[in-house]
Amino acid sequence: MENVKNYLSENKDRFLNEIIELLKIQSVSADSAFSQDVLDTADTVKMRLEEAGCDIVEIHETAGYPIVYGEKIINPDLPTVLVYGHYDVQPADPINLWHSPPFEPVIKKTEKHPEGAIFARGACDDKGQMYMHVKALELMVNTNQLPCNVKFMIEGEEEVGSNNLAIYVAENKEKLANDIILISDTGMIANDVPSITTGLRGLSYVEVEVTGPNRDLHSGLYGGAVANPINILTKMIASLHDENNHITIPGFYDKVEELSSEERAEMAKAPFSIEKYQNALDIESVYGEKGYSTNERNSIRPTLDVNGIWGGYTGEGAKTVIASKAFAKISMRLVPNQDWREITELFKTHFESIAPKGIKVVVKPHHGGQGYVTPIDTIAYQAASKAYENTFGKKPIPQRSGGSIPIVSLFEKELGSKTILMGFGLDSDAIHSPNEHFGVWNYFKGIETIPYFYEYFTEMSKK
Amino acid sequence: MENVKNYLSENKDRFLNEIIELLKIQSVSADSAFSQDVLDTADTVKMRLEEAGCDIVEIHETAGYPIVYGEKIINPDLPTVLVYGHYDVQPADPINLWHSPPFEPVIKKTEKHPEGAIFARGACDDKGQMYMHVKALELMVNTNQLPCNVKFMIEGEEEVGSNNLAIYVAENKEKLANDIILISDTGMIANDVPSITTGLRGLSYVEVEVTGPNRDLHSGLYGGAVANPINILTKMIASLHDENNHITIPGFYDKVEELSSEERAEMAKAPFSIEKYQNALDIESVYGEKGYSTNERNSIRPTLDVNGIWGGYTGEGAKTVIASKAFAKISMRLVPNQDWREITELFKTHFESIAPKGIKVVVKPHHGGQGYVTPIDTIAYQAASKAYENTFGKKPIPQRSGGSIPIVSLFEKELGSKTILMGFGLDSDAIHSPNEHFGVWNYFKGIETIPYFYEYFTEMSKK
Repeated sequence: MENVKNYLSENKDRFLNEIIELLKIQSVSADSAFSQDVLDTADTVKMRLEEAGCDIVEIHETAGYPIVYGEKIINPDLPTVLVYGHYDVQPADPINLWHSPPFEPVIKKTEKHPEGAIFARGACDDKGQMYMHVKALELMVNTNQLPCNVKFMIEGEEEVGSNNLAIYVAENKEKLANDIILISDTGMIANDVPSITTGLRGLSYVEVEVTGPNRDLHSGLYGGAVANPINILTKMIASLHDENNHITIPGFYDKVEELSSEERAEMAKAPFSIEKYQNALDIESVYGEKGYSTNERNSIRPTLDVNGIWGGYTGEGAKTVIASKAFAKISMRLVPNQDWREITELFKTHFESIAPKGIKVVVKPHHGGQGYVTPIDTIAYQAASKAYENTFGKKPIPQRSGGSIPIVSLFEKELGSKTILMGFGLDSDAIHSPNEHFGVWNYFKGIETIPYFYEYFTEMSKK
Repeated sequence: MENVKNYLSENKDRFLNEIIELLKIQSVSADSAFSQDVLDTADTVKMRLEEAGCDIVEIHETAGYPIVYGEKIINPDLPTVLVYGHYDVQPADPINLWHSPPFEPVIKKTEKHPEGAIFARGACDDKGQMYMHVKALELMVNTNQLPCNVKFMIEGEEEVGSNNLAIYVAENKEKLANDIILISDTGMIANDVPSITTGLRGLSYVEVEVTGPNRDLHSGLYGGAVANPINILTKMIASLHDENNHITIPGFYDKVEELSSEERAEMAKAPFSIEKYQNALDIESVYGEKGYSTNERNSIRPTLDVNGIWGGYTGEGAKTVIASKAFAKISMRLVPNQDWREITELFKTHFESIAPKGIKVVVKPHHGGQGYVTPIDTIAYQAASKAYENTFGKKPIPQRSGGSIPIVSLFEKELGSKTILMGFGLDSDAIHSPNEHFGVWNYFKGIETIPYFYEYFTEMSKK
């Protein structure tokens, strides 16, 4: 692979402008108010794939938002890389905590990104990281160095569960046939500590509704005499963890993979400072399951977090009301071997069983997905590792992530292929939060590294 | 007192139209968006008091919303009744649960109100009940039967804590001097079971804010490793009640008045059907403090209820976020001898103490007030009882209410006068809830009963 750095420096401004334009489109898949924007984003991605050199680019309609498919097949005898990414983004709220509007990208320097970072919703997750692959293809095509076949599958419903992608994949196995799936939708430890994600957690996301009296009541006239749905909801949620922060749902841990003490010792070698971690979050102490380190708690252990809660009067001032209903959104991160459908069912059964008389409970499963572990003894992992070594100047560390890309285990099941997670974001990039950003250095380092993966993977596959 | 029924039937339509006009003004004191409406309501009340026959009517500015003062002094040697009421109303939300717009009053028949009820925010609490007194004055003045002096003090901040009224009362003791304070801001058992409220609970209303990490976090990357403010808030709130539904705040019950078994036996005689109560609320079971009946739980026992809770993502769909902050509005109903300031302090100290490391807590007291018990051996109570007996055809039952009118105990302290609570609403009138209403029969029964109170109170005072 030659001329990579030259091509990047010659096209730097255009590569930045293109991602900035893409970030301006408000592709929030969770909120139907943005549906036209989501569709517009798909069209833009299609156009960019064509410009980058794909021979075929198609918009595949689904029951939800479309999937953009692209391909450039140079020789059927060569290996095929399937790039997966998503063009939809998380909702931007709470909007008032953004320092600049979430869909008006700006570049600002930060402590971790002295060369500047692009601030916008989706900058890192996943428009910015997905677009690195589009530009890497352009680079390889325009410098006549594409060493293998490539397919793109960019969806618009990752942030809402990828339900339609699952159907699409099952129905298009032949079209999507590949030798390796390549995804940039994770992070790495630091710009000077490159890492490759080798494990993802699964996910079960549910919404609960508790109902007490059939109408809001005056808290003076009824207070103390009827079950208050908000008080009950807090009691029910609180009871889901015991005093050691173990999850109390019967059967929840039955299938959890327990790592050996050797494996845990290996994990503990990753560079980590509890002081820096706490300082970055402005917290006095970490908090979690007894018997596990912070890095273990957010990677190899399952969790249960309330992502949203609401009920009663939440406006200005005071209202003495007992609400008829209270709600919460709850997600569980799962580890390999836990089945998300089984866990969702266990949650539902348990949560319904702990409601006191006088309270009705509805548990509505939102979406979910299985966890995933990437083996590190494969050609693909070795090719990726060598690519990082080449561009970062040091060997990347294999690392389990706490996040979830539920579709990855489905890819393996349906397409029979492994996935390589080449993420270039940082944990501090505030994905899913206000002021999400993606380092300019990281964006270009990603575009620089990806072609070497193609090169090494193709070479190693020949042997 | 003569010609009462005639006067009422001759002026029925006008009396209804006037209250409907008053209910159209959106006097929500808790929300500054409505401040001009609140001020307009004060002007309307002033005009109506002048029309009804007051000789002096004044708008008293305060640091918040004004107090409307009116008087008609016919003879300094005669007793003086001070009528207190409020022209502000609770917020109307959740708006979508109203069957007709909250500020567009309509009259509809209900099971409990076969002659129709006025549906509007404030219909019962307290515009409708306050306005009965304005019309009762008009009736007595126009039929030349006003037997004593009368003063009106109608405030606009009852629903937000009456802070400025407290200052006004302390500064105007002479102007407000009276022999009895008369308030219609409570309810009665049923249209065929009249009752007079003889006890009110106190109130302490606080807002709590818990803060974990300094920004919203991705629940996959951080889930399980940091304290989630929503999970922690649910745990903290849940811990405020033990398994018997006793409140766990140290010192909370220290000063609670314990009723004798004779007093509790007397209370138990009030007509009450647990089945009807549960059916009306569509609940399978009541719920509350162990060892006490439903009527005791919501009158002689203190309570702690969450009135609102919010945090994280509450929009459509799913967002896998750990919120930086979570909030709740919490109110405690207090019984005689519990001091609301002391209880607020106990709550604050306790709530701050139970936060785990890694979580910051702010407790912001909103407002509060003392409980109150009316003696039933006074001239005023006897006069009120006789008035009800006259117009309802049966003797009213003295009854403790679970609600709070925090200003009542302050009136006694500052003005040295007792208060009579002649409420004509029903518990089912949905005050503070969507579809608040006030029976047309109750409205006119109130206007009919009040003049007899004036008559009997004046007669009995002479003896």
